[in-house]
Amino acid sequence: MTSAPRPPLRVGLLGYAFMGAAHSQAWRTAPHFFDLPLRPELTVLAGRDATALAAAAGRLGWGSTETDWRRVVERDDVDLVDICTPGDTHAEMAIAALEAGKHVLCEKPLANSVAEAEAMTAAAEKAAAHGVRAMVGFTYRRVPAVALARKLVADGRLGQIRHVRAQYLQDWIADPAAPLSWRLQKEKAGSGALGDIGAHIVDLTQFITGQTVTGVSAVLETFVRKRPLPASTGTLGGVAGEGMGEVTVDDAAVFLGRFTGGALATFEATRFALGRKNAIRIEVNGSAGSLAFDFEDMNVLKFFDGAEPGETAGFRRIVVTEPEHPYVAAWWPAGHGLGYEHGFTHQVVDLVTALAAGEQPTPSFADGLQVQRVLDAVERSAADRSTWTDIDTEGVH
Amino acid sequence: MTSAPRPPLRVGLLGYAFMGAAHSQAWRTAPHFFDLPLRPELTVLAGRDATALAAAAGRLGWGSTETDWRRVVERDDVDLVDICTPGDTHAEMAIAALEAGKHVLCEKPLANSVAEAEAMTAAAEKAAAHGVRAMVGFTYRRVPAVALARKLVADGRLGQIRHVRAQYLQDWIADPAAPLSWRLQKEKAGSGALGDIGAHIVDLTQFITGQTVTGVSAVLETFVRKRPLPASTGTLGGVAGEGMGEVTVDDAAVFLGRFTGGALATFEATRFALGRKNAIRIEVNGSAGSLAFDFEDMNVLKFFDGAEPGETAGFRRIVVTEPEHPYVAAWWPAGHGLGYEHGFTHQVVDLVTALAAGEQPTPSFADGLQVQRVLDAVERSAADRSTWTDIDTEGVH
Amino acid sequence: MTSAPRPPLRVGLLGYAFMGAAHSQAWRTAPHFFDLPLRPELTVLAGRDATALAAAAGRLGWGSTETDWRRVVERDDVDLVDICTPGDTHAEMAIAALEAGKHVLCEKPLANSVAEAEAMTAAAEKAAAHGVRAMVGFTYRRVPAVALARKLVADGRLGQIRHVRAQYLQDWIADPAAPLSWRLQKEKAGSGALGDIGAHIVDLTQFITGQTVTGVSAVLETFVRKRPLPASTGTLGGVAGEGMGEVTVDDAAVFLGRFTGGALATFEATRFALGRKNAIRIEVNGSAGSLAFDFEDMNVLKFFDGAEPGETAGFRRIVVTEPEHPYVAAWWPAGHGLGYEHGFTHQVVDLVTALAAGEQPTPSFADGLQVQRVLDAVERSAADRSTWTDIDTEGVH
Amino acid sequence: MTSAPRPPLRVGLLGYAFMGAAHSQAWRTAPHFFDLPLRPELTVLAGRDATALAAAAGRLGWGSTETDWRRVVERDDVDLVDICTPGDTHAEMAIAALEAGKHVLCEKPLANSVAEAEAMTAAAEKAAAHGVRAMVGFTYRRVPAVALARKLVADGRLGQIRHVRAQYLQDWIADPAAPLSWRLQKEKAGSGALGDIGAHIVDLTQFITGQTVTGVSAVLETFVRKRPLPASTGTLGGVAGEGMGEVTVDDAAVFLGRFTGGALATFEATRFALGRKNAIRIEVNGSAGSLAFDFEDMNVLKFFDGAEPGETAGFRRIVVTEPEHPYVAAWWPAGHGLGYEHGFTHQVVDLVTALAAGEQPTPSFADGLQVQRVLDAVERSAADRSTWTDIDTEGVH
Repeated sequence: MTSAPRPPLRVGLLGYAFMGAAHSQAWRTAPHFFDLPLRPELTVLAGRDATALAAAAGRLGWGSTETDWRRVVERDDVDLVDICTPGDTHAEMAIAALEAGKHVLCEKPLANSVAEAEAMTAAAEKAAAHGVRAMVGFTYRRVPAVALARKLVADGRLGQIRHVRAQYLQDWIADPAAPLSWRLQKEKAGSGALGDIGAHIVDLTQFITGQTVTGVSAVLETFVRKRPLPASTGTLGGVAGEGMGEVTVDDAAVFLGRFTGGALATFEATRFALGRKNAIRIEVNGSAGSLAFDFEDMNVLKFFDGAEPGETAGFRRIVVTEPEHPYVAAWWPAGHGLGYEHGFTHQVVDLVTALAAGEQPTPSFADGLQVQRVLDAVERSAADRSTWTDIDTEGVH
Repeated sequence: MTSAPRPPLRVGLLGYAFMGAAHSQAWRTAPHFFDLPLRPELTVLAGRDATALAAAAGRLGWGSTETDWRRVVERDDVDLVDICTPGDTHAEMAIAALEAGKHVLCEKPLANSVAEAEAMTAAAEKAAAHGVRAMVGFTYRRVPAVALARKLVADGRLGQIRHVRAQYLQDWIADPAAPLSWRLQKEKAGSGALGDIGAHIVDLTQFITGQTVTGVSAVLETFVRKRPLPASTGTLGGVAGEGMGEVTVDDAAVFLGRFTGGALATFEATRFALGRKNAIRIEVNGSAGSLAFDFEDMNVLKFFDGAEPGETAGFRRIVVTEPEHPYVAAWWPAGHGLGYEHGFTHQVVDLVTALAAGEQPTPSFADGLQVQRVLDAVERSAADRSTWTDIDTEGVH
Repeated sequence: MTSAPRPPLRVGLLGYAFMGAAHSQAWRTAPHFFDLPLRPELTVLAGRDATALAAAAGRLGWGSTETDWRRVVERDDVDLVDICTPGDTHAEMAIAALEAGKHVLCEKPLANSVAEAEAMTAAAEKAAAHGVRAMVGFTYRRVPAVALARKLVADGRLGQIRHVRAQYLQDWIADPAAPLSWRLQKEKAGSGALGDIGAHIVDLTQFITGQTVTGVSAVLETFVRKRPLPASTGTLGGVAGEGMGEVTVDDAAVFLGRFTGGALATFEATRFALGRKNAIRIEVNGSAGSLAFDFEDMNVLKFFDGAEPGETAGFRRIVVTEPEHPYVAAWWPAGHGLGYEHGFTHQVVDLVTALAAGEQPTPSFADGLQVQRVLDAVERSAADRSTWTDIDTEGVH
Repeated sequence: MTSAPRPPLRVGLLGYAFMGAAHSQAWRTAPHFFDLPLRPELTVLAGRDATALAAAAGRLGWGSTETDWRRVVERDDVDLVDICTPGDTHAEMAIAALEAGKHVLCEKPLANSVAEAEAMTAAAEKAAAHGVRAMVGFTYRRVPAVALARKLVADGRLGQIRHVRAQYLQDWIADPAAPLSWRLQKEKAGSGALGDIGAHIVDLTQFITGQTVTGVSAVLETFVRKRPLPASTGTLGGVAGEGMGEVTVDDAAVFLGRFTGGALATFEATRFALGRKNAIRIEVNGSAGSLAFDFEDMNVLKFFDGAEPGETAGFRRIVVTEPEHPYVAAWWPAGHGLGYEHGFTHQVVDLVTALAAGEQPTPSFADGLQVQRVLDAVERSAADRSTWTDIDTEGVH
């Protein structure tokens, strides 16, 4: 960490709800802990409600505001557009930004449909020819324990992967009295638990194993089909009114999968697992070792080394807070754990590092498209009596 | 526990391998801790190898031996036949015993095919008209933590069940060099992980929820298709020789399911989860509460009470060793945990109690048939591109 | 496990309450799982109440009864006297039995005072000259995870021991309304939590480390000084009546200690740790590794190997159910855990094996005396403003 | 979080090592998540090495620098002095700042001796008469799970406290080859594990129980008495050179304690618990409930409610990430855990809130003095054969 001057990276952020706050914290914090090759500037924040927007910009630390996101794309003083709006807006925003020569960081899921994701990927590839980069925001890859899991697999410590089991369990709408929101409406959110949290475990398991899902058999379920309308709307649109409204997305998605290397997988994403708040659980069994991760204990990775003699073999509880561990050296001494938001900070670090090096940051839009195709295959299988459905791999590298 | 004299229950045991040893310990131990209405006598042990049989009878405490199981069925001094042989022999033995007027306890899975299980169930129902009883041995129901789970669901503490996730993870053949055995041969074992351990989690989840599985979507996998032949044979048949032999059963089974009450389920049974020795994991999420059990911590049940205020809500780690808990009062003071074999002892207790009361012990052969139909549907779905396959409910009450 | 005939070992058991039941189960069970060099016979059970005694003998499987324990000591058909009565009777019974040429297994704590323990140890050493053996029953040494802990230390996997922390936490009298019992009376029990459960953690930490405690600084506490008298008496004496009676032993004992090798130790024994039923927790930190055990998860030993690189170092959760682990091969396949009572069975195995080999079983009465001296030093320190108090090592080998 | 303009709070920070970085992150972050009544400004950073200081100021976000801390105290544009230097400098700096009318936040332990702490407390009380406030930085109080623990005790959920057991386990100098640093030198650090981490568990247990320690019996130990000198010095002084230097502080401290309400306590602070990186473990047993916390799982509090029926009683694993929990509503949705540094942010929030309200922030210097007196009693007891040593309560409210 030297004091050498860094060129600026001027950021325009679209959206300031949960994800907007997380991204803001990341842009603010990354340069204080990591020696970034570019100096992020929180240039402009966009949203539709001028009053709420001004408050958000002040609270989150942004230098200016725009009530029309197109203005952000057009502004000369913006180098990168960071998209934190609902999924139905991603394609239009990202394509416009890329065409305007801005780098793009787009929250997951990449889009609400494969068609949109394909268009975005095409735009990203066209832009890349001019050095303009696009990245999709699967931040859980940057939890140190997850990054260590990836490393152990890549190092061969698991051998041939045989089983993957992944669950993303929440309970925030387990109560039928929880109100309708944009996240429960297909036209805004694309899908429910599937796209919101199922996308994460598809990406995480593909990232950790270094393989992709080749087919699925799925069931989707909406346990509560009508919910009370909320009194007022949320950020950037939503629903409001009196009486009941229809839930048009899935509450839960369960599916079987197969990975390129032959591993069997089970996936479950639900918002109805009472008592589980944000439990992302990933287990991988290989011929040489096994891994287990649970975001409820996010600074820990469990690792079973099959080479260990039986007398002393057992899952090791690795507290992933050592300087040897990914991202950790920049933070605190051993044993002083990180939190949820640090994944976003690491995302900024990796993105900025790639941009400065003129390299493609990962996960790319093509990676996001591939996840979208898995989600699409899940929906098609679920609609066709769970029949095994292969994943289209066209255009995915 | 009084010293009043009890009528005898004279037992003939078929098989003396792993299950035979476990059943023997149960028959010996139950009367020392529970005030049984009948006094079990370890009358006769059957097996084909006279030398090994004599040694086993001495070690396990049986009063006499027979090298032909049919003699056990015929003997006047036998009231109950306990079947601990491989699955391909269950139907013939059980039907013969029932027809001879002997009560039957038959190890799971009930049979190697639905047709056999149907014939056994018919025989059991015919016998029941004469007061002769048949029971299938799903002993994990009798782990106190599992019995408590069932009680909490029955008491309404979970509300409407929405999710069931069940895994039975072992790793004893994860090594491709592990030898072929009868458990890996379809004609002996019927199926692999599916029938051996998958049957347990089907039964356990149905027992805990009080519901049955109505349909499945499944994938089966055999990771290692050829294995070295063992030098010598095991008990009651098996394989032997030089070179390699073919594995004709599944190594792993994964399937989605739906329960009668609408709950979504995921099931996984595998012998390739490196580092997991006998991890039976069951989680149930309902509208009012959630449960989690893991046999690796068998004296514990985790329970989330949705009625608890958010400030203090959390999964409780109930150490199921209190006198209030099922079966526990007969054993040790609070906190002094039980082991694997105690489930078999409780099975003897429940069976003997039902016999003395002239009632049907549970799980009945019809219950075992219903599990068999789920396994059969799993195999048919897996053979038909994972297409959703309904479970036949004919003759199941 | 052959069927070769074994010479008998005829056992007389004194007492049939909690410990008597546990010892009975061990004597009955051991020969069915282990190939013992002697064949235990449950010859005679002694107690004072003839009616209760007859019922107990029937329930526990003993061949005859005596209402006077001296008759057991005198009987020609008794080879070994197993003492499961309260501590105030141990010295008289054990010395009489040894003088009569009977082997002795005596429950812990060895005695209620150092003087008694010294007399018993002297009697044991005199008897040993004639091949008559005495052993004290610290059964927790025989939990496989504890025996593995001992082995890892002996193998040097921990290096130089620096820290020992041991807790034995119960809560059965946390409620002030819990009635008075013989365990709360000094003249019967000698001490309270200190001798009853503190003795176990002193023995366990000495066993695991292979070192002895050289000095202590202690505090004792009686939180509830008066308790309701129970309506009727317990086995082999006790208190009864109306109104309140005085608690004359400690409810809790906390002490610091130093081991021969220089390690620092903390000890805590209490019956007031609400929610902890039988939590025996032992942690040992050495220069090369660390260990952690908790009886609430009795089939698990946690081990940290300091030689592991930082990237993958972590406490391993060793599920101590592998055939490589102490005592385990005689029982079930990997992953099928044992329970509380198995420690007693292993105690019988080790005792019978030593007797047949003409060797001194461990722990010896001298070992029990050494623990008694630690307890005595705790009481003296607590009575002297917690001043550091050295342990007398006279006569301890 | 409104956009109303807030008066500034201009901060001068002394020291920029580990603690300086943590405090800087807190000052930067707090206003983005909490609606603070004052607007912190990172006005000036002080350190002795101008080059390193400039780099640190850039990295940590401070507006100016001073190589003489006295200049910070004198500057008119500083409202609060934040002291993050070694303990030997605290008294002089804090007293000077208070006398200059600056509020003071001083890292723990308050001082290296009781005498210094008394002088600081006197200065703080004098300053308070003029509305100038002083606070000592025991940040672990602000971990949400710890704050919840305090609330549950204050709400009476534990009843009468009977046991406290507290451990702070690290291993960063378990290796004898780890170099000497200022933290291992008495003249800089005052004491070793005792003051560095033992101080935290004294404060935490007093905070959670709402009681103070009245006496102790203690042992101190230095396992490794000579260590290699480091090649270069650390921030704000230290040791350097060739060869070996003497460790003049304790490596570990163990002590028994008694709380005002009668509870028994055990304390252990060590830097030699191999495999434990920053394990702060606190357990409290009361007559109505029990609590357990471990910083290795910092977003979790375990709570046993003694009012729960035995059938469903058990320690609840409360994931302390609900909006109902202390500090949490300002951050992320349920289940998205916080990290180590968030405690410092909460400290800023509580401090700024108290300053704006004209109230005394807690813990006060008097609270820090009380902890210092406990540490002093520990040292005196350890030097006097562990004899019970009462804590002086003079001047502590």
